[in-house]
Amino acid sequence: MSEQKELPIGVFDSGLGGLTVVKALRQALPQEHILYLGDNARVPYGTRSPETVERYAWNCANFLMKKGLKMLVIACNTASAVAVPSLQTRLDVPVLGVIRAGARAALQNPEHRRLGIIGTAGTIGTGAYPKEIRAMSPEVQVFQNPAPLLVPLVEEGWIDGDVPTLAVQRYIQPLVQQQIDVLLLGCTHYPVLQSVIESELRQMGSAADVVNSAVAMATEVQQALEMHHLTRSGEATGDLQCFVTDMPSSFADAAMRFLGNPVGNVVKVDIT
Amino acid sequence: MSEQKELPIGVFDSGLGGLTVVKALRQALPQEHILYLGDNARVPYGTRSPETVERYAWNCANFLMKKGLKMLVIACNTASAVAVPSLQTRLDVPVLGVIRAGARAALQNPEHRRLGIIGTAGTIGTGAYPKEIRAMSPEVQVFQNPAPLLVPLVEEGWIDGDVPTLAVQRYIQPLVQQQIDVLLLGCTHYPVLQSVIESELRQMGSAADVVNSAVAMATEVQQALEMHHLTRSGEATGDLQCFVTDMPSSFADAAMRFLGNPVGNVVKVDIT
Repeated sequence: MSEQKELPIGVFDSGLGGLTVVKALRQALPQEHILYLGDNARVPYGTRSPETVERYAWNCANFLMKKGLKMLVIACNTASAVAVPSLQTRLDVPVLGVIRAGARAALQNPEHRRLGIIGTAGTIGTGAYPKEIRAMSPEVQVFQNPAPLLVPLVEEGWIDGDVPTLAVQRYIQPLVQQQIDVLLLGCTHYPVLQSVIESELRQMGSAADVVNSAVAMATEVQQALEMHHLTRSGEATGDLQCFVTDMPSSFADAAMRFLGNPVGNVVKVDIT
Repeated sequence: MSEQKELPIGVFDSGLGGLTVVKALRQALPQEHILYLGDNARVPYGTRSPETVERYAWNCANFLMKKGLKMLVIACNTASAVAVPSLQTRLDVPVLGVIRAGARAALQNPEHRRLGIIGTAGTIGTGAYPKEIRAMSPEVQVFQNPAPLLVPLVEEGWIDGDVPTLAVQRYIQPLVQQQIDVLLLGCTHYPVLQSVIESELRQMGSAADVVNSAVAMATEVQQALEMHHLTRSGEATGDLQCFVTDMPSSFADAAMRFLGNPVGNVVKVDIT
């Protein structure tokens, strides 16, 4: 068991977005080793069919599992919505998806009764969030709207100004009309636009709280490590090793923006 | 030779955009059989590295070549910018890319002296258009600007209203400042936004002509077929068979919008 504790946690995402989860993990569990895989040769996942997303998720999981892991974290909402059940059934390590963590975070405040969710077309299309939320709090009303263009906007770095503001307006308007009291950002890219989203909510007269799942994901990981007696002991800071399927140097630049410090050598790999 | 004339022309693109080329081919060469492949499980190509785009282009070409072709047309600007030389060298059928056709179309009017180009980051980054244009007309000045968000806008169907208008403004402004007299749409997705682009040019006081390469591509194909004695004879309309790597039914819906009539059975294939 003590050797197993030394193994890294594997985290994968379609691209950059999952680094918001890595950032939260580094803060909550600095001693853990992390292997991150961003499948940026095939980003975005959110516009693809469930079958294709499941195939891509298995490519990612198989690559990371071969490195030796003690836990697998699916930081991509679309992949979590589609592939968590099959990965949990067939892998021999705990598998945690960001959907459950996000749902739990949105329901943490018991005053939240009308929950709005934005995510990719893939995530919204599966109905994974409403299903998870109904299982936890059947009395909460859920309203969803796909917001697919926010991913390319973030990937392109258009994170303030007219275009993201108008796109955000268009996506959250129907949810504000439903008088939501909490808005869940159901895609790991969206926290980058959180200030635009909050500002537009206020402009529309909504006081809804905005919840992102990255921090909640780190709490779930912490609890799962404790439950499985897998927490790494000691004071030494864990390593972070990043793998991508395309463009390691532009990933390294963007990762520095996401995490606030350099990520070291990013290795390009073929996972198909 | 007569049997070879009966073979289809293969056309591939990263997704839907290449259907603008198919439409022009159907109009110019209605008797030809066409096999179309849209790699929509990995769209967009324009944000990926040249090595990855070249690998994807080879996947597409190999899939179509196995079906038996008399000619291969690369309808994707990014793939044309990267992969035409290696495909031309190693395949035993004529290979035509949309870059050369676009360059020729933009230079057709000898009064054009200041040429603006918008395309994906991948296409612009290779410098393929300026190189092609300098080879044809060294005296023409070329100004480029990547316009990557226009692809997801078209794929999402946001083709009029504030968001595409503001995005177009932002992308063409620097070219208008260079007093271009022709604007080449260097991506097969962009013709869908042509009326927005023309209207914004006029708003900015520019009288620049807008050129798209799809029609020019059809002319190139016609000439190449004649040169190689490969034109299919007879009056009977050729078949169009579409293959995609994801979501055949949503492709069929979008293809109907692009082409103006149904495309029949769209077959999902794995090309990796």
